[in-house]
Amino acid sequence: MDRIITIGREFGSGGRELGRRLAENLGYAYYDQEILEEIASRTELSEKYVQSIVERRPMFSYPIHVGHSFHPVINPAQDFGQKIYLEQCNILRELAEKSGCVIVGRCADYILKDCNPFRVFVYADMDSKIERCRRKGKGQENLTDKEMKKYILDVDKHRARYYEFYTDQKWGDRKNYDICVNTTNEDIKKIANILARLFKA
Amino acid sequence: MDRIITIGREFGSGGRELGRRLAENLGYAYYDQEILEEIASRTELSEKYVQSIVERRPMFSYPIHVGHSFHPVINPAQDFGQKIYLEQCNILRELAEKSGCVIVGRCADYILKDCNPFRVFVYADMDSKIERCRRKGKGQENLTDKEMKKYILDVDKHRARYYEFYTDQKWGDRKNYDICVNTTNEDIKKIANILARLFKA
Repeated sequence: MDRIITIGREFGSGGRELGRRLAENLGYAYYDQEILEEIASRTELSEKYVQSIVERRPMFSYPIHVGHSFHPVINPAQDFGQKIYLEQCNILRELAEKSGCVIVGRCADYILKDCNPFRVFVYADMDSKIERCRRKGKGQENLTDKEMKKYILDVDKHRARYYEFYTDQKWGDRKNYDICVNTTNEDIKKIANILARLFKA
Repeated sequence: MDRIITIGREFGSGGRELGRRLAENLGYAYYDQEILEEIASRTELSEKYVQSIVERRPMFSYPIHVGHSFHPVINPAQDFGQKIYLEQCNILRELAEKSGCVIVGRCADYILKDCNPFRVFVYADMDSKIERCRRKGKGQENLTDKEMKKYILDVDKHRARYYEFYTDQKWGDRKNYDICVNTTNEDIKKIANILARLFKA
């Protein structure tokens, strides 16, 4: 039976590559950026702007004394972020009904929990992630190792906040995943081919 | 090339079964209780007594004011626990040199780190662990669910303390493992057969 496979990942760990290869091996649909494009086309916002909202948990700017008041100050940025999140939930559910698929990021493990997704988390040692970012060259390749490390930690901090804000679960906590894979020194293609066997009769 | 595979595991998660099946599939040696028997035969202590020391981190009974004094009170129980630990280190290193093997528990991932072991951590949801303990019946099958849960948490607390005492690493932290496998609702034989492929050319 076709499954929904969700992939959470540390930045630079190769989670996207693992997802793509897994989808390819299984003949499943693969989603990450495509979902954003779909969202963007529905909400008529530029993809780049949506990306910046989705990657970062909506920032609160409540006055500090408001706390857990029953009369929260309405924050347009937060309200807007949540609108995108809800739209994303709808799209994810639609996609999950269509066919077996691999979804990278986007809290898909949580949003689709009723579909009993197979939840993967991908991580790696810092040195391995720095090397990978440098090799893949997505605009950070000229940073020093120290700058690169800070960048990686920063992206993951945002991912964790976003995930924890919407799911009330701890990002990267093994309890929330079916398998956690360390890609340090590993061949991602090989891992993908081996994991794929979990979904073959 | 034959590898050393180490398995850390939550009590009731099926880590031992996974280890045995993995060893069987790969034609590797399998060690857990056998190591203790070897230790027992070398130190001429009853296996049961050694087991109780090895499963539990040596307990300190320093007077509270001693703290980090440079003149620690010698504690025979601690001294004895450490003697067993060192003996265990030697035996593990000897075994690791002999052939590819699977070693369950015993801080083997840390002790054998120079051998670049493949480090597995096995875990499961509490309900699944309770069900497994009841099914496997190792003397806890008559406990209530609540008692069983307490027993499972207690065993793992001792494992964590023992591991953290000797390794300065956090037991179960994904950073210390190459793969973390959640056995909830999974067929352990299938997982073992799939993992085995990581070690085949």
